Amino acid sequence: MTQPATESTGFDTDPQTVGLYETIHKRRDVRAQFTGGPIDPDVLDRILKAAHAAPSVGLSQPWDFIVVRDLEIKESFYAHVQEERKAFSDSLSKPDAERFAGIKIDGVLDATLSIVVTYDPTRGSPNVLGRYSIADAGLYSVCLAIENLWLATTVEGMGMGWVSFYREQFLSKLLQIPETIRPVAWLCIGPVTHLETVPDLERHGWRERTPLNDVLHYETWGNRALHEKG
Amino acid sequence: MTQPATESTGFDTDPQTVGLYETIHKRRDVRAQFTGGPIDPDVLDRILKAAHAAPSVGLSQPWDFIVVRDLEIKESFYAHVQEERKAFSDSLSKPDAERFAGIKIDGVLDATLSIVVTYDPTRGSPNVLGRYSIADAGLYSVCLAIENLWLATTVEGMGMGWVSFYREQFLSKLLQIPETIRPVAWLCIGPVTHLETVPDLERHGWRERTPLNDVLHYETWGNRALHEKG
Repeated sequence: MTQPATESTGFDTDPQTVGLYETIHKRRDVRAQFTGGPIDPDVLDRILKAAHAAPSVGLSQPWDFIVVRDLEIKESFYAHVQEERKAFSDSLSKPDAERFAGIKIDGVLDATLSIVVTYDPTRGSPNVLGRYSIADAGLYSVCLAIENLWLATTVEGMGMGWVSFYREQFLSKLLQIPETIRPVAWLCIGPVTHLETVPDLERHGWRERTPLNDVLHYETWGNRALHEKG
Repeated sequence: MTQPATESTGFDTDPQTVGLYETIHKRRDVRAQFTGGPIDPDVLDRILKAAHAAPSVGLSQPWDFIVVRDLEIKESFYAHVQEERKAFSDSLSKPDAERFAGIKIDGVLDATLSIVVTYDPTRGSPNVLGRYSIADAGLYSVCLAIENLWLATTVEGMGMGWVSFYREQFLSKLLQIPETIRPVAWLCIGPVTHLETVPDLERHGWRERTPLNDVLHYETWGNRALHEKG
């Protein structure tokens, strides 16, 4: 992508554009940096509205948000996460398990609050426009809302961490989520001391980020021609 | 959420914060407003890098991006989308089918280019940290990248539309995507005449957006107490 620009993009001067990219690139999946400090109710309202403004298949808005502050609920969830952590650790080779032992995987007890995001496949049914051919399209919409929430949290100077060491059934029971609704994410949210500049897993030598060019194709899968020329 | 703010949030003055929220709220799922005008290669590079900077489970970055400009490919896909559109239409009641007839569902032939986003479940395997308990977590990551791409496209003054009237198998064959890779989205991208202020489906009376409070719960499912008090 080294071709010269054919027109001015305004990138260097427009603060909105610069701001969006800076927010996208500084966003981190936070585990260890939560302070537990207060969240302004207006801020909580803004980040939730940002999530709720996400695109959704057939305008179905199939998400719900459960704001969790209750310590007893958090402690139950935390205990379950530790069990799942152990199960994963037991599945690893010895060197991997040793590396994994040093990695913090959640901030459930440290973050100010958590937001559990769920998917309701019945919303807008039976005729969800655009979900006729692809059943998972509703689930995809929920994830778009989660990314909005993540970026809004980041731009507000807070951190967010997605915990995925849990069984959906456990979480449903804990929060009395009906059987027809699927929990998609437990998100820890709150003020942080700082955001790391390098993702935790890269800092711990678990895995490195790949360059964009490794995942770029042109016209059909595996065709790297334009990149190689460019 | 009408409690008074307990501290200044800087929301009114910080251009990055204002910019992110404005971008999130003005983003639309574009069908009819594409001009077909050129996309600066630097802009394309920036929006793809924004997508590639998304969070991913276990830092697996399980997405690929196929940039499609080829007219023959677009025409084949467009013809397939029309078939799927007809199948959906045939499944509707007569009044719904009549309303649906007036709704444009894709900009495949009008948009400057398309980006097909795929999911590779083998990336980072066998030990994707955080995908042990939830198999779909990798698929979720791909959607986070798509929302980054959507917001970047929007802040660059362009439009994006997610087409979901297709069969995954058809798209895989068309773009020679390997069997182990799952296509997740066909995204139309390019300059637009304008972004509508109200989503297409709402303007056409298909469905209305709900207020945030309809999807908010506190501590456990169905508990609206804090909202009702607030």
